[in-house]
Amino acid sequence: VPSVRKLSAQLSVSVSTVLQAYRILEDRGRIEARPQSGYYVRPPLAPAAAVPRVSRPSSVPTKVTVGSLIMEMLKLSTQPGVAPLGGAIPPDQCLPTKQLNRIQAAIARRTSRGSNFYDLPPGCKELRVQVARRYIDAGCALSPDELITTCGCTEALNLCLRAVARPGDVIALESPAYYGHLQIIEALGMRALEIPTCPQDGVSLDALRFALDDKPVRACLFVTNFQNPTGAVMPDETKRELVELLAARDVPLIEDDIYGDLGFDLRGRPKVCKAYDAGGNVLLCGSFSKTLAPGARVGWCAPPPRWRDALEELKVTTTMATPSLPQLAIAEFLASGGYDHHLRKVRRYYAQQVQLVSAAVQRAFPEGTRVTRPAGGHVLWVEMPPRVDALDLHARALERKINIAPGPIFSAKGKFRNFIRLNCALRYDEMIERALITLGRLAGDA
Amino acid sequence: VPSVRKLSAQLSVSVSTVLQAYRILEDRGRIEARPQSGYYVRPPLAPAAAVPRVSRPSSVPTKVTVGSLIMEMLKLSTQPGVAPLGGAIPPDQCLPTKQLNRIQAAIARRTSRGSNFYDLPPGCKELRVQVARRYIDAGCALSPDELITTCGCTEALNLCLRAVARPGDVIALESPAYYGHLQIIEALGMRALEIPTCPQDGVSLDALRFALDDKPVRACLFVTNFQNPTGAVMPDETKRELVELLAARDVPLIEDDIYGDLGFDLRGRPKVCKAYDAGGNVLLCGSFSKTLAPGARVGWCAPPPRWRDALEELKVTTTMATPSLPQLAIAEFLASGGYDHHLRKVRRYYAQQVQLVSAAVQRAFPEGTRVTRPAGGHVLWVEMPPRVDALDLHARALERKINIAPGPIFSAKGKFRNFIRLNCALRYDEMIERALITLGRLAGDA
Repeated sequence: VPSVRKLSAQLSVSVSTVLQAYRILEDRGRIEARPQSGYYVRPPLAPAAAVPRVSRPSSVPTKVTVGSLIMEMLKLSTQPGVAPLGGAIPPDQCLPTKQLNRIQAAIARRTSRGSNFYDLPPGCKELRVQVARRYIDAGCALSPDELITTCGCTEALNLCLRAVARPGDVIALESPAYYGHLQIIEALGMRALEIPTCPQDGVSLDALRFALDDKPVRACLFVTNFQNPTGAVMPDETKRELVELLAARDVPLIEDDIYGDLGFDLRGRPKVCKAYDAGGNVLLCGSFSKTLAPGARVGWCAPPPRWRDALEELKVTTTMATPSLPQLAIAEFLASGGYDHHLRKVRRYYAQQVQLVSAAVQRAFPEGTRVTRPAGGHVLWVEMPPRVDALDLHARALERKINIAPGPIFSAKGKFRNFIRLNCALRYDEMIERALITLGRLAGDA
Repeated sequence: VPSVRKLSAQLSVSVSTVLQAYRILEDRGRIEARPQSGYYVRPPLAPAAAVPRVSRPSSVPTKVTVGSLIMEMLKLSTQPGVAPLGGAIPPDQCLPTKQLNRIQAAIARRTSRGSNFYDLPPGCKELRVQVARRYIDAGCALSPDELITTCGCTEALNLCLRAVARPGDVIALESPAYYGHLQIIEALGMRALEIPTCPQDGVSLDALRFALDDKPVRACLFVTNFQNPTGAVMPDETKRELVELLAARDVPLIEDDIYGDLGFDLRGRPKVCKAYDAGGNVLLCGSFSKTLAPGARVGWCAPPPRWRDALEELKVTTTMATPSLPQLAIAEFLASGGYDHHLRKVRRYYAQQVQLVSAAVQRAFPEGTRVTRPAGGHVLWVEMPPRVDALDLHARALERKINIAPGPIFSAKGKFRNFIRLNCALRYDEMIERALITLGRLAGDA
């Protein structure tokens, strides 16, 4: 695009007006700034390939058994020399570790007493204030007193499931589901019921309604924004309908919003179902593991009042307290305004990475391959031709030191046999390009 | 005692020989050093009062329901202006928070990458090396690869119980039991069976044998060293017998060794049951929350091989990872040798505090009161005359801003109605002395 100076002269407007206009275009993903060079038109985010179809999961609740395959994939995710297309782990350059460590050290110097104590539930007040404040952007007026901090989102989900359901109970999930949800349900002895899900708009409410009529669903566990693995975002109107549907039937919704801050559209973030929860039926969960500090183990849940005491007791009997110093450091980072600036950078970066990997998949994979067009997060969900077996592909890729997440781990039934999930978070380089070409060739050989 | 110089002259031995002799007497608790003053004979640790008798719990397994009373007591434990005789929380001056914070800041400067990542199970290798090394003193040759780090001992116990038992299963505990164990069992829907326990030697093996013949005990959960609340230490020979007894019946033992490093006898620490576990039947758990950093949430478990995979999966589905930076900092603190020096100070301090509180109880409480003589830890278990109701005393004490742990929370059956547990960890001062006098008067009024 024309340089700022040129356009300013051409249109007879001030330089700052042009800059502002370019900034808006940048936020919308239309152009991008390159340091010391200027602004450039950005390739369109949506790739040409078709997206995967709405899922058709089995209608029978299932005991889950995907654990060991997942553990293997997770452990390989950070192994040097293995192409990191497996676990959805944020890369170092997307984490403000230095700033957080500096803040942490400063707090520790200020108060040795306040940095090391049993921070019993509900946990760090300063942090709860900041988290509550951020949910205003998600349409949700939360009081800090409604939040309980946890050791990451995993603990939040684990506790919420235990608060609302018992072993043997049926939990409705997306299909494909985040494998971590399946693992938690397996570990708690509950049963998963997978609900047809659109890779763009999330869970099908028609299908969910049908399932609720037919099965003893005890609770729903959905990722409503930038679902893992599809990237689906449930439209606001659907969120409202979902909350009403579940409230009418007294089925609680556990809402996993861990990716909510990682949308590619910089104009704002999508709402949460909790924003429509007038009756107190939504247990909202989140964490800073994907945006700031996977190593800090700081997450939260916001349960309605009727489950609050139970959740505090479950928290005390599961980990007693949440780490005290990391909570204070993250609270200070948020209060300083550094978080939004950081998110801006990271969201642009992920948008670009997802685009690059998607383009490479379309070049390298066999005809008939479908790829999602996520609006946030950092993973792609790839549907390969039916003859390709993802577990087989996974095994053959590992021999070549390429780690991927095979489709069947996203289903308690071992469905999605010809799907894989690709993590796009690590900087696209020659190693990743070569890995994608190899994957495409292996898939083509099938 | 005579000054070092004087005794050296008197016996014609060198000053360093006298110093060494005094040091040995100090380690044995016979004399104590007072800064700028010299060595003094120490009052005997064992108070004159009788100790409580062996417990006689009910023989019927029970669903546990003590949660809300405990939450209230915990939350009041750190409230300013309330005499802190409730929760067993280590005081700031017994935690090397400044050193740990300094190490943490240094590590963070060295490696931002290495300080913030999903430290998936088994967790930080450096820390596991140090923890394994320390168990040599407890008679136990552990490999670092046998350990899994956890978010505190609470998570370790929670995961171990879930690995070996299911909801509804019967877990054998001490009587009185640590209320935290009762809470975990309640939260997991398991049932507690309380076994008669001697306040000096721990669980009665005769009673346990009888219970195992009679009830479907799925697992045992015992604090074998400095049990909370009694301070009991199971003699080594009994530990060996216990391990053999349980192995013969294939009943796993979850061993909570959280107080193992806090004995008053500085010559060494007691063994763990795990030291005798030839057959792989003991799941050893511990943490640094009582000795170094309650705020760091760093503990561990050492499961036998048959439960290892299950435990790693349970860990991943409960909190995913253990905080990364605190693990590295504690590992470095241990590797530097600072831990033993720190423990020496803290163990002397707790011995003195327990002695001071015990003496005050004997002065202030009504005739017939019995007090334990713990050999480690920092709590006292007080049996008052049968007419005194501990729940009533607890309520009346709270009105006077005194927090205590009433006996019934240490039993799923609400037993120990005339017992209280006193935390002795905070520096004995006028506030605590006044609180104990008030408590004694309230108990006497009953």
